[in-house]
Amino acid sequence: MLIYAQGAQLAQSQKAREKAREGSRLATSGMAHGIVQANLLTVPRQWAYDVLLYAQRNPKACPILEVIEDSGVESQLAPGSDLRKDIPRYRIWNDGKIIEEPNDVTRYWREDLDLVSFLIGCSFTFEAGLADAHIEIRHQTMGRNVPMYKTAIPCEQGGRLSGVLVVSMRPIKAERIADAVQISGRYPAVHGAPVHVGPPAELGIADLYMPDYGEAPVRLRAGEVPVFWACGVTPQAAITQARVPYAITHAPGCMFVTDVLNESYCL
Amino acid sequence: MLIYAQGAQLAQSQKAREKAREGSRLATSGMAHGIVQANLLTVPRQWAYDVLLYAQRNPKACPILEVIEDSGVESQLAPGSDLRKDIPRYRIWNDGKIIEEPNDVTRYWREDLDLVSFLIGCSFTFEAGLADAHIEIRHQTMGRNVPMYKTAIPCEQGGRLSGVLVVSMRPIKAERIADAVQISGRYPAVHGAPVHVGPPAELGIADLYMPDYGEAPVRLRAGEVPVFWACGVTPQAAITQARVPYAITHAPGCMFVTDVLNESYCL
Repeated sequence: MLIYAQGAQLAQSQKAREKAREGSRLATSGMAHGIVQANLLTVPRQWAYDVLLYAQRNPKACPILEVIEDSGVESQLAPGSDLRKDIPRYRIWNDGKIIEEPNDVTRYWREDLDLVSFLIGCSFTFEAGLADAHIEIRHQTMGRNVPMYKTAIPCEQGGRLSGVLVVSMRPIKAERIADAVQISGRYPAVHGAPVHVGPPAELGIADLYMPDYGEAPVRLRAGEVPVFWACGVTPQAAITQARVPYAITHAPGCMFVTDVLNESYCL
Repeated sequence: MLIYAQGAQLAQSQKAREKAREGSRLATSGMAHGIVQANLLTVPRQWAYDVLLYAQRNPKACPILEVIEDSGVESQLAPGSDLRKDIPRYRIWNDGKIIEEPNDVTRYWREDLDLVSFLIGCSFTFEAGLADAHIEIRHQTMGRNVPMYKTAIPCEQGGRLSGVLVVSMRPIKAERIADAVQISGRYPAVHGAPVHVGPPAELGIADLYMPDYGEAPVRLRAGEVPVFWACGVTPQAAITQARVPYAITHAPGCMFVTDVLNESYCL
């Protein structure tokens, strides 16, 4: 059941999208507290089955919240929204390579390709739950984008798509890890519980302070453990791997802010 | 993470499939306690995108556990299984109509259509959790198939598929309803929490003792309330509605018994 924000909270999410429309290129972590943010992946109709199958087989990394067909631009998670303008920073992909990072993709919206857009759950959703439980979200405290890493863990292949799991990392105090697991675990539709708690080397991450996406460094303090969650940037690694001829995505950390409350996806 | 049964428990699930292979046409509720059972939907590749999209938009009714492509017959949920033989009773659909209910579909396995099979979560999975909490599963006590109903509630359209929500019903004592909701709610991948507790008329069910699928009557006793869960027979209603040219499904109540423990899908 989708539960929509109201009043002042609704104004916050609308403002977040408005800022993006007006040209802001800022990451969205911490914006519109308590409201669902989503990853965007837009592909030609010819690739939509592959994406659906890849997502079904990798539900922790690619939990699909909505599918918008027929080159549509409005999400039902945000009435009046425009997927071409409401994200601060996009990526345009040609044959698996990024060719541009615009703030508006109207002129890239190739209706001739019969575009299908996927909104995928984002861990920023449960960050609100963590913050409410007084678990510090370090990258927010530092005013930075969350650090994200390509792991050495292969995802399940789906159609023509394959690739490695991408994770986001948050340093958590040892005594709050159980809380962080349980709180995020209540949100399986937005990555849910962590995939890994502790040594980054076992994920194939050589240097915690050299993330593949997002901003470095988000430092660990004494008594903290790095905790890793599956990340909605995972499909971007698959786009590269499969050399998808054309795709539009958000830029990591610059999400689509919906009007829907986190409670919509809380068990 | 898939957790496979071992030893005596594994022998139970293998025996359930063996009985089906040997010709049993019995419903599977209560068989192989603690092991996941699944609905089957097999369609031509040309309809696979529609099914994936329909499932994504109706996750409570159609939680997909596995997709088997290329006319494959072995599920990774049950190594050595054969989807054409291991279900007690199947349905063959032509243009949305049932033309036969065989015990073996080997000769209907149209590889020329490049079949894609979907295993969909089944509420029999959380019945074990209810039974473990001493909540009586009335249809099991009565040795009957669970009663299932077409509701008046439309599902979200997905591709060429649309149709109404199908639900299963279990009578639950008023004082155990909160328990039943919470226990089943821990299994979102197999329908999760109920969709409706109480008056059947509000679902468009005219007579609780005249189910559309399964066996009547499963009587309510004094102090009991009918509790309704989304049901994996829902795609069969969509097959009829869309007049899908060719499909193979299980017969309601006669499920595919896997080798995977319910804990695999418990949050």
